[in-house]
Amino acid sequence: MELLDKINNPSDIKKLSLNELEQLSIEIREFLINNIAQTGGHLAPNLGVVELTISLLKTFDFSKDKIVFDVGHQSYIYKILTDRKQKFNTLRQYKGISGFPKREESKYDFFDTGHSSNSISACLGMARARDLKGDNYNIISVIGDGAFTGGMVYEALNDLGFNHTKMLIILNDNQMSISANVGGLSKYLNKVRLTPSYNKLKQKVHYQLDKKNSNRLVRTVRKIKNSIKNLFFNPMFFENLGVRYIGPIDGNNIKDLNKILNKVKEINDPVVLHVITTKGLGYLPALQNPDKYHAISKFDIKTGNTISKNTDTYSKAFGDSLVKLAANNKNIVAITAAMASGTGLKEFSEIYPNRFFDVGITEEHAVTLTAGMATSGLKPIFAVYSTFLQRGFDQLLIDVCMQKIPAIFAIDRAGLVGNDGKTHQGVFDLSYLNIMPNIEIIAPKCTEEMETILSYAVNASNPVAIRYPRGGDLIKLSPMKRIESGKWEKVENGEKTIILATGKMVGYAILAKSQLEDKYNPIIINALFIKPLDKDLLKKIVKNQYNVLTIEDNNIIGGFGQQVLYELNNLGFNKKIKIMGYKDHFIDHGNVDELLVQEKMDINSIKQEIRNLYNA
Amino acid sequence: MELLDKINNPSDIKKLSLNELEQLSIEIREFLINNIAQTGGHLAPNLGVVELTISLLKTFDFSKDKIVFDVGHQSYIYKILTDRKQKFNTLRQYKGISGFPKREESKYDFFDTGHSSNSISACLGMARARDLKGDNYNIISVIGDGAFTGGMVYEALNDLGFNHTKMLIILNDNQMSISANVGGLSKYLNKVRLTPSYNKLKQKVHYQLDKKNSNRLVRTVRKIKNSIKNLFFNPMFFENLGVRYIGPIDGNNIKDLNKILNKVKEINDPVVLHVITTKGLGYLPALQNPDKYHAISKFDIKTGNTISKNTDTYSKAFGDSLVKLAANNKNIVAITAAMASGTGLKEFSEIYPNRFFDVGITEEHAVTLTAGMATSGLKPIFAVYSTFLQRGFDQLLIDVCMQKIPAIFAIDRAGLVGNDGKTHQGVFDLSYLNIMPNIEIIAPKCTEEMETILSYAVNASNPVAIRYPRGGDLIKLSPMKRIESGKWEKVENGEKTIILATGKMVGYAILAKSQLEDKYNPIIINALFIKPLDKDLLKKIVKNQYNVLTIEDNNIIGGFGQQVLYELNNLGFNKKIKIMGYKDHFIDHGNVDELLVQEKMDINSIKQEIRNLYNA
Repeated sequence: MELLDKINNPSDIKKLSLNELEQLSIEIREFLINNIAQTGGHLAPNLGVVELTISLLKTFDFSKDKIVFDVGHQSYIYKILTDRKQKFNTLRQYKGISGFPKREESKYDFFDTGHSSNSISACLGMARARDLKGDNYNIISVIGDGAFTGGMVYEALNDLGFNHTKMLIILNDNQMSISANVGGLSKYLNKVRLTPSYNKLKQKVHYQLDKKNSNRLVRTVRKIKNSIKNLFFNPMFFENLGVRYIGPIDGNNIKDLNKILNKVKEINDPVVLHVITTKGLGYLPALQNPDKYHAISKFDIKTGNTISKNTDTYSKAFGDSLVKLAANNKNIVAITAAMASGTGLKEFSEIYPNRFFDVGITEEHAVTLTAGMATSGLKPIFAVYSTFLQRGFDQLLIDVCMQKIPAIFAIDRAGLVGNDGKTHQGVFDLSYLNIMPNIEIIAPKCTEEMETILSYAVNASNPVAIRYPRGGDLIKLSPMKRIESGKWEKVENGEKTIILATGKMVGYAILAKSQLEDKYNPIIINALFIKPLDKDLLKKIVKNQYNVLTIEDNNIIGGFGQQVLYELNNLGFNKKIKIMGYKDHFIDHGNVDELLVQEKMDINSIKQEIRNLYNA
Repeated sequence: MELLDKINNPSDIKKLSLNELEQLSIEIREFLINNIAQTGGHLAPNLGVVELTISLLKTFDFSKDKIVFDVGHQSYIYKILTDRKQKFNTLRQYKGISGFPKREESKYDFFDTGHSSNSISACLGMARARDLKGDNYNIISVIGDGAFTGGMVYEALNDLGFNHTKMLIILNDNQMSISANVGGLSKYLNKVRLTPSYNKLKQKVHYQLDKKNSNRLVRTVRKIKNSIKNLFFNPMFFENLGVRYIGPIDGNNIKDLNKILNKVKEINDPVVLHVITTKGLGYLPALQNPDKYHAISKFDIKTGNTISKNTDTYSKAFGDSLVKLAANNKNIVAITAAMASGTGLKEFSEIYPNRFFDVGITEEHAVTLTAGMATSGLKPIFAVYSTFLQRGFDQLLIDVCMQKIPAIFAIDRAGLVGNDGKTHQGVFDLSYLNIMPNIEIIAPKCTEEMETILSYAVNASNPVAIRYPRGGDLIKLSPMKRIESGKWEKVENGEKTIILATGKMVGYAILAKSQLEDKYNPIIINALFIKPLDKDLLKKIVKNQYNVLTIEDNNIIGGFGQQVLYELNNLGFNKKIKIMGYKDHFIDHGNVDELLVQEKMDINSIKQEIRNLYNA
């Protein structure tokens, strides 16, 4: 690491020659792979942007210029080369550096990202501020072709183009996917592909691959259901908006990048620079399987194998149950917003390709599409991460719940997600769903309960949200075989104090009780319905004068416990109630066990709260 | 009303000749104007779509075909001609028919709309259902050029174009606005304008205007900050996506419409039919001033004058305060999502045109733009209706609150809005804002308190939401001149019971107390900070053993009262607390006073709850 060791400050990069920059790119790849093999993280996207990031740091001065990485998972190289090289081995670890840009982490980070398609809006805000204040610096958004499917991009471009605000958008195109089915557009793209410059570029990319991996590689052009993304490669689209288009250029060639970035820097207009990069470049397993290595857990560098993990996840239980139910109900269809694998829909998509819809990173559209389907005789299930469904909040409220439309929302990664941190923790969904009239919210206490709940949801005549966490079961539990709206399940007998736990926290409550002194013998309830609550059971609690402990994998405000408290208060409850959940703050990265301790939501904390209630 | 009287069923329209259809259009305009003069409502947009709606009903059969009106305020003619002519005099009235499409109101309404830009998504869902089920009917989205700025439109078109799903999008273009500043695009549009077909169309429109109003009228081509909208008039945009483009055609000419709709009906592909309609056509005051008559209260038909109303509104107080503060702070800028007038920003936009940004119907973009501005030295204020900010939920949570960005959100039309009904009631914002860490939520108790609060917000170092209702003050109150984070104001002394009221409900509480028997003497608190709560005061409540009544113009779930209850419970509170707010449901249209009675939130209900607490 001869060169990388010497980079203590981004300005050190400016002193390097082209040869040295190329040498640096090799060292960085080695550094990156070695580190991510230990910490896990987004490997393939970062391998793709090594040269681009080096060239940006060579050309611009981020002690005054500003840069925003859209989504942000491709900001590792930038972190290493600005001021986080020493801490890079703490990436995504508890108290370590984040896997996403964080303003509080470095003066070189200008906007915290994590969700998609918002970088142009943020940059335009900065550019407006710069211009109104008479300042003079560069503002750059680095955004992938996937993020370009989100509606915010269009809203922002619409606004940007009008005033010819100086700003650079780098369209980082790493999976140029063409569908033969797209009418006029494919014709246009064919034309682009026949131009000498495109072919030259293509040869260069292949040459590089040959050189670096001694392995001839032909990129698979995958058919994806995405056409607007391709439309953007029609320069007229940008030009019509008043945004200049330059490209496509080879984003893995530092010499070309330096040349073009130096020129682009001087343009006093909004510019889109279209660069083609190769995901996974420099590490053969990632190059051959960029999807798998997009986000990866610890792996063995030689073989590329990940350390095997429990595969009995809630995602898998959902996918398996759905495949099973769909066999007997041809109205069942599934929707995903670019998360087919993550949400466990892979098998469904293969068995029922006509009933599977991947709509790109478009949660707003996805929710209303789901609503439209349900009005016309289908039983649609939108599988989505808790944190991303936040993007469809209004659509879920107005287009689904207001009309009491019987659609299903399978909300994965609910609760703490761990290493992705702040932007990805699914700790708000119980709160934002509770607000919505007409919806039922259900949480399985174990993976094996998924099928029963999904089957219930398919037969419901109102919207149903099923929320479940990342990962699998803490302990083996006996699943319910039949459920009834608003009815909870008693899982442990006891006396004096009653625990109302929801979702995976049922397992935590049982484990806590099992470790307690015999004199503490709380009843434990699986509060599988967060909405509606089991009012009969709540009445019994008031009548029997139990103390109450509620436990949920969600923030306290607006969550399950507060609704229980509200109902109990209406019923004249006058004993003690303690609500366990996350405080009113954003929770950083770290593994889930560490975070549970930090949040006082671990087994020991539950034990202590039980003791407190008995001794109150 | 010779012809209109005979229309009892949409199929009756099919029997009419062209001359009769034209006669019908005249009768409908008269019927529409006479009714809206009495009920108030969206006049200008409906006057523009009379011929289009007649022609759609002539061509299609909505006993099997489906139609979705985007936003939905242009669905009046459709309502009249399907099955709501008899009830049309109840439009927007309590227990009457809605001003927007409502599935529960008629079998001819297929999707409830009210918010913008979602009709293509809903229709695509229906189309997918139709095709999977092997059905065969037509699906039509009618969407205005304004709604086309929303990102959902692009997300949906992206999805639609791929599969060549049969579906008709009618782009109802009624304000074709061209900015000379838009580069390549204006060139293209100039070309369109030079074609013979466009000129013929223009002549026709002018001819019609002449004929109907005996008044030569030249349409003003207004400069608006909007370029993507115009881009859509570039047919290649649609064609590239696999969507066929037909147009522009004269949308106020039944003969042309019938001809083209009959042809379009046979196309087995997605089609965009671009029709040019004239807002306000057939009523001179509306034609000359379509903005004023977009949504209008009761008016005098002869003069066009509206019955004058209280103009001392919260919107005006906000606008006036902002203008004042901006004079001494050049970092203050204002953002609106196509609601400059409604949010009281008109004057600001005229005095500070460079510091005013209308970004179109793009709440997602608007929130993140605001965040970007605030990171770079500006003090941005996004003024937005409560119900529309729902569209920016995720951006507010992640792009603003997570980063603790000091931006201001001026949330107008919070609480009950009245006649616009279900889709527009602002009864969720306290709940969805309470969820968000780091934000302060403040509500002025009277219009005169706006300036103090806005001034506080401008100096805050965290996000601040100011929420206030439609309309003005119930009674004259004395405004606070200085406020402090998390400190409430005692507005009435008393004993035993304490009322914590927020926003306009403070006036209601005071009025209720003034009408009560002397033995009921509650303390009244202006709980201007919904977040953070005044914990010192809550401690005093526990210590003094007061009973508590909370009153808020918001749904109960997740709202102010539940947070008070939660904190009091943590503090060991053991007296009675009653939470007043709206139940867990959507609230239909009607005037605010009627709705308050229905929701048991009127003065009498407050009096009763006070008595109950004293007698508990």
